[in-house]
Amino acid sequence: MQSVKENGGHLSSNLGTVELILALHKVFSFPQDKLIFDVGHQAYVHKLLTGRSLENLRAQGGVSGFPDPFESEYDPFIAGHSGNSVAAGIGLCNARDLRYRVVSFIGDASLGNGLALEAVFSSEEKPKNFLVVLNDNGMSIRTNHSALYRSISKVTAKKRYRRFNSRMERTFKDTSAFGRYLRKIKYNVKGWLNKNDFFERCGFKYVGPVDGHDLSELLGVLNNIKQIDEPVLLHVITQKGRGYEAAEQDPARFHGVARGFAGGENSFSVALGRLLCSRAAADPSLVAVTAAMTDGVGLSDFAANFPQRLFDVGICEEYAVTMAAGMARGGLFPVVCLYSTFLQRAADQIIHDVCLQNLPVLFCVDRAGFVGSDGKTHQGLLDLPMLRAVPNLDIYAPKDCAELADVFDFARSRMRPALLRYPNGYCPNLGSVHKISDFYLWETLSDGDGPVVLACGARAVSRALEAKKLSGVKSAKIVNCRTVSPLDERFLDAIDKKKIITFEEGYAAGGFGSAVAEYYARQARTVQLKIMGADSVPVEHATAAQQAEKWKLTAADLARKIQAWEN
Amino acid sequence: MQSVKENGGHLSSNLGTVELILALHKVFSFPQDKLIFDVGHQAYVHKLLTGRSLENLRAQGGVSGFPDPFESEYDPFIAGHSGNSVAAGIGLCNARDLRYRVVSFIGDASLGNGLALEAVFSSEEKPKNFLVVLNDNGMSIRTNHSALYRSISKVTAKKRYRRFNSRMERTFKDTSAFGRYLRKIKYNVKGWLNKNDFFERCGFKYVGPVDGHDLSELLGVLNNIKQIDEPVLLHVITQKGRGYEAAEQDPARFHGVARGFAGGENSFSVALGRLLCSRAAADPSLVAVTAAMTDGVGLSDFAANFPQRLFDVGICEEYAVTMAAGMARGGLFPVVCLYSTFLQRAADQIIHDVCLQNLPVLFCVDRAGFVGSDGKTHQGLLDLPMLRAVPNLDIYAPKDCAELADVFDFARSRMRPALLRYPNGYCPNLGSVHKISDFYLWETLSDGDGPVVLACGARAVSRALEAKKLSGVKSAKIVNCRTVSPLDERFLDAIDKKKIITFEEGYAAGGFGSAVAEYYARQARTVQLKIMGADSVPVEHATAAQQAEKWKLTAADLARKIQAWEN
Repeated sequence: MQSVKENGGHLSSNLGTVELILALHKVFSFPQDKLIFDVGHQAYVHKLLTGRSLENLRAQGGVSGFPDPFESEYDPFIAGHSGNSVAAGIGLCNARDLRYRVVSFIGDASLGNGLALEAVFSSEEKPKNFLVVLNDNGMSIRTNHSALYRSISKVTAKKRYRRFNSRMERTFKDTSAFGRYLRKIKYNVKGWLNKNDFFERCGFKYVGPVDGHDLSELLGVLNNIKQIDEPVLLHVITQKGRGYEAAEQDPARFHGVARGFAGGENSFSVALGRLLCSRAAADPSLVAVTAAMTDGVGLSDFAANFPQRLFDVGICEEYAVTMAAGMARGGLFPVVCLYSTFLQRAADQIIHDVCLQNLPVLFCVDRAGFVGSDGKTHQGLLDLPMLRAVPNLDIYAPKDCAELADVFDFARSRMRPALLRYPNGYCPNLGSVHKISDFYLWETLSDGDGPVVLACGARAVSRALEAKKLSGVKSAKIVNCRTVSPLDERFLDAIDKKKIITFEEGYAAGGFGSAVAEYYARQARTVQLKIMGADSVPVEHATAAQQAEKWKLTAADLARKIQAWEN
Repeated sequence: MQSVKENGGHLSSNLGTVELILALHKVFSFPQDKLIFDVGHQAYVHKLLTGRSLENLRAQGGVSGFPDPFESEYDPFIAGHSGNSVAAGIGLCNARDLRYRVVSFIGDASLGNGLALEAVFSSEEKPKNFLVVLNDNGMSIRTNHSALYRSISKVTAKKRYRRFNSRMERTFKDTSAFGRYLRKIKYNVKGWLNKNDFFERCGFKYVGPVDGHDLSELLGVLNNIKQIDEPVLLHVITQKGRGYEAAEQDPARFHGVARGFAGGENSFSVALGRLLCSRAAADPSLVAVTAAMTDGVGLSDFAANFPQRLFDVGICEEYAVTMAAGMARGGLFPVVCLYSTFLQRAADQIIHDVCLQNLPVLFCVDRAGFVGSDGKTHQGLLDLPMLRAVPNLDIYAPKDCAELADVFDFARSRMRPALLRYPNGYCPNLGSVHKISDFYLWETLSDGDGPVVLACGARAVSRALEAKKLSGVKSAKIVNCRTVSPLDERFLDAIDKKKIITFEEGYAAGGFGSAVAEYYARQARTVQLKIMGADSVPVEHATAAQQAEKWKLTAADLARKIQAWEN
């Protein structure tokens, strides 16, 4: 817990699964048997048990916040995005003979994700020696035990029901929009959990529910499961934050941080929340859509003020986007708020359901750029390359929170698909020269007739201004390139005789600099152009500043390039 | 039917839904009420009923093969990719008051898709005046009617069961791998269909099953549904190919073409099928994975020869990719065969589950480039921009079918994530100068010391060779750029003093030419570069050749550029 306190991370989900993970390790022979986590933020105990110190958790050089096969042979599969463990487990089973057992460990919230549902419904013949552990940490349980459960777990329904019903009552007090939505989606999925034939029909022997905090019972059940070779779904009831009173007492917070990144100030998230509240008050057609990220993207106040206009659909990014497209078709103005890394899950829905139909859906993409300690599974480096070629999609990157509002209103006025991207962490306001709707789309923040620095995104613009000072090159021109699609073509036409440096925090491949290079090359215009961006390699956990250093995207790195091109 | 014969398209699914669509149009008030298709290839009858001639179906200027809001106000939502109709319907309902009804029309195969499952499970409170029509055209039905069904449809279970059980028996004779897989996945989903409480718990009143070919019964049931405002799921049993004996008699074929493009020769698909059979015979670790495209991607023979090594998972691209990643983790060599357009559905799984783990999964991406008459929802123009920045992913574009084998073996030898992309239609063999594994990755097919044409992909290379002849510029150098990631950097270093034209059939934004421009610009090397590629706008239905003409990517277009740069 101390490690989490110092380095940030996921607390309550780990406290809730201590006994369960101990029991799994006691009964199975990892790493020969394979344990696959799902959104691996419950894996801290597992990491400790497999000889990894949490002292430098999520810090550069320390262990990562998620399971990682490159970190340990005890982690057979990556687990940063929800819902993949059942599919990966089936694949692993399909690849092996019966030498080892495969255990997929999935939370009840992840079970509602499309990838997980595809896998659960995939085939009536599930692989042998395959165990899915359903870590169910929130809801009232209506037990309905199968003969199998009674025969191998030796507990009775009624006692169990009473025990958990009382324990879980507090969770029901969570009245946030997400809490309510989560309950709804959970009811649908979970209405079936205790109907054994839900999983039985999908090819699993259902065992459960079992008390996830009763170690001896868990050991007994797991040992029994180990004796049979059939595919089993073990339904375990756990309590998030178990053993840490503050966490046990504040269940609302558990949902909110369940999928979150490290806390701390996120300027843009806060600014977006305020902006949406203000615009929603004036525009009854504005609705907000998110996927289990209400707090993270800054929508807590919006949820309180406009509960009927917030749609938090749980970990279902695909549904969020297509549902938003349907809303736009019906005349609403949906603002879809997602982290960059999770937006990847909805790429096809953005293309097919939103952009091909040219519907006015606005994507507010948080955590774009280096995200820091959550590491490679959570980096926001691919949204721009991935979506830049998509027809009809406008892409914006405001330089600061003040400009967010200006860009938001401009994007709104164009009534077509648009995406606004911005980083996490603290971002200073940089002052404004002119609005996006005036004259040029782009904005020259510091003029000069020397090398032109085209900076894209809040961190890049801020560093570019600093780099000009560091470089001592007073003739450098620093430009805030707040649109990527469309580019400011008049601006580009005017500067093509100068030396140009593009600067962005993202993969260079297909990014902003790439767009500038293309613009000139499509017209066969020869320009002196330098692209600065990250190589396409995974970016490990560290602070965002350390990541920028490692990928040579600091103000000092840019200053050196400016100097080099001045000479 | 004549139109389909002449222009290609989806036949059996349309024949199976004639009465159902007639009844819907009779009872509801479209376009005021909204009818949303799912994979809209059953929409031909709907198009006829709404005043659209099928004479030029899927041809340039004619009606498209799928519903399209830009084509008719009777098409409120696009429908080219499976599983979106329930999500879009809920969104549309959320946007409206109760002035109109929303009808989502979904096939049973689409119901297993993650997006559809997310939507079905999304909330216990489904919108009012919302009807989901489940068009169920294949399986044995074990009826279990609810009180609601009995009260409004007035039919009895037993009679219905006998009638359909006999009708559907033929379908069971389909013994192909896909047929078997489909039955498995359908059992899981469909085991629940007749448990009314599956849909009831998800917030729908369940009505059904109803005979989809009994018009008067359909009218009766729909009129009853119209009287209530609750969300309803209407379960309709139809027979694919109904009324066309050849289609009724050959159910195996119905599955194979259910999601297919127009037939005709697809050189690469055929070549891939042969290649995989040959490599599988020598390599027991090779397995093939696809998502309801077994025939389309050329795997029919593989399915017959290696039935245990083909995994056709139905319309579940996400599951296909993550399951393949699990197989790779277990030591297999999975070859995932998908159309470019449907690969979009699995973007995050490619990134997170395959590439971040650096697993040796090989993606064979068919229908990359202009696909012709299936039009904008099915174009293969985004895979390259979308995935070029993804860490660890090698990307290849063999120039012809002979080179496919060479590139396949090369990619295999590197033991990392790789993607091979190639177009549909006929592709001639172009001859070989040297293999990819020898000396340069790229291959100079026609030498010269004038402008250098860097052509990427089979169609582009073939046209570039033709363009050299057309241009009369004998000094032009024609290069087969069969790798996109990695680029052939030695080759690029050697030519940077020349005039360079990049030529590809795809969106220019983030594509191959963009990669070349980036390569030079990241090193601040000034080159004379012209990028030829398509603008990022939707590409409507026409022949692939017409599409290339419209987007100025023919041999003649390239010849003009070569001439212009020679002068």
